[in-house]
Amino acid sequence: MSAKTDKMVTVPKAVINRLPMYHRFLYQLLLEGKEKISSQELSQLMRITSSQLRQDLSYFGEFGQQGYGYRVETLYQAISGILGLEKQYTAVIVGAGNIGRAIVNYPGFSRRGLKITGIFDNNPKNIGSQVGNLTVMDVEHLADFLKKYPVQIGIVSTPVQAAQKVAYILMKSGVRGIWNFAPIMLEKNGDVVVEDIHLGDSLLTLFYRLNEKEGKN
Amino acid sequence: MSAKTDKMVTVPKAVINRLPMYHRFLYQLLLEGKEKISSQELSQLMRITSSQLRQDLSYFGEFGQQGYGYRVETLYQAISGILGLEKQYTAVIVGAGNIGRAIVNYPGFSRRGLKITGIFDNNPKNIGSQVGNLTVMDVEHLADFLKKYPVQIGIVSTPVQAAQKVAYILMKSGVRGIWNFAPIMLEKNGDVVVEDIHLGDSLLTLFYRLNEKEGKN
Repeated sequence: MSAKTDKMVTVPKAVINRLPMYHRFLYQLLLEGKEKISSQELSQLMRITSSQLRQDLSYFGEFGQQGYGYRVETLYQAISGILGLEKQYTAVIVGAGNIGRAIVNYPGFSRRGLKITGIFDNNPKNIGSQVGNLTVMDVEHLADFLKKYPVQIGIVSTPVQAAQKVAYILMKSGVRGIWNFAPIMLEKNGDVVVEDIHLGDSLLTLFYRLNEKEGKN
Repeated sequence: MSAKTDKMVTVPKAVINRLPMYHRFLYQLLLEGKEKISSQELSQLMRITSSQLRQDLSYFGEFGQQGYGYRVETLYQAISGILGLEKQYTAVIVGAGNIGRAIVNYPGFSRRGLKITGIFDNNPKNIGSQVGNLTVMDVEHLADFLKKYPVQIGIVSTPVQAAQKVAYILMKSGVRGIWNFAPIMLEKNGDVVVEDIHLGDSLLTLFYRLNEKEGKN
């Protein structure tokens, strides 16, 4: 069930990008046993203005009560619904290096509904090794595997040279979304959704902010 | 040397966040041996409008020539300068799990000027093991190490429970920037710069975009 209103509203990308952050903070508050929170408190916690908070949430209906604030559980459930977290998402990982292994082993992803059904690599040293409960398979069998066991998401954690080729196999095999860790902008086949993580970009932003602080640029 | 103009201009965060992307694409073009590029071509490659491209770069001075476009090398060097990439940045990593190992082993980071001088963990199974050219040290010795060998950046790749404690040690030991991979908003001591990578947030954005595509929310 979604908490979105019936009106057809296009939600700005900036708002969508903040929803996971809301979700993360509300989860933390739930763990701390907090039942209600004012928009002032919540916005201070998240370092945004309370008017921005209220405006963001207004895209998805009315959650707050005047003079009371938000029920943490209600808001958490609503945002989970908006994000589509009541579902489970199946995925394979291609690239069983450190990043691929980190994804398999990170408990927070399965809590969010990600179910990883297979992990693949092209390196004989990796093929056959254990990662969590999974055995690394030969990437030569990726297309066959996906024919038998279709998944929604393909996670690309290969070196940059292999990423585009792998992405084409994934798209041809019917994945609908790609979570891309390789530092390359993938070309798309059809209307697949690609979400990139560019760790190098984040590092350069840190460098820039350090320099800015020193007044050196 | 920086290409920034002398005028005191506050550069919007959105522009700063795009600079690493410009840098990444220009590096790719250099590798491909491309010498010049029009703003149309470059903006299409990056999937932004060419007016946005020109506006972004105008914050840092004039690089393009009417009817010619940009010299790839000149623009690449200028953006490298703005990002502060002519320098080297020293860092330690705390947390020698998969993420910590991935950072040490990823060649793109040292190319950007990141020099990792130490990696620490609290797990006896990890302490003493090799990661690239480094030997994992006991986190108990982190403060002593930093007293002897100060660094600018602390990279936090511990589980969430340990992240804040580690961050306080890093800040107390004089690091000026923290690159945080733990899914927590760190409290700061003083005016340290914190740049977060929240992998879980990116995953939730992917889920949302998949649902949106299916018209299910």
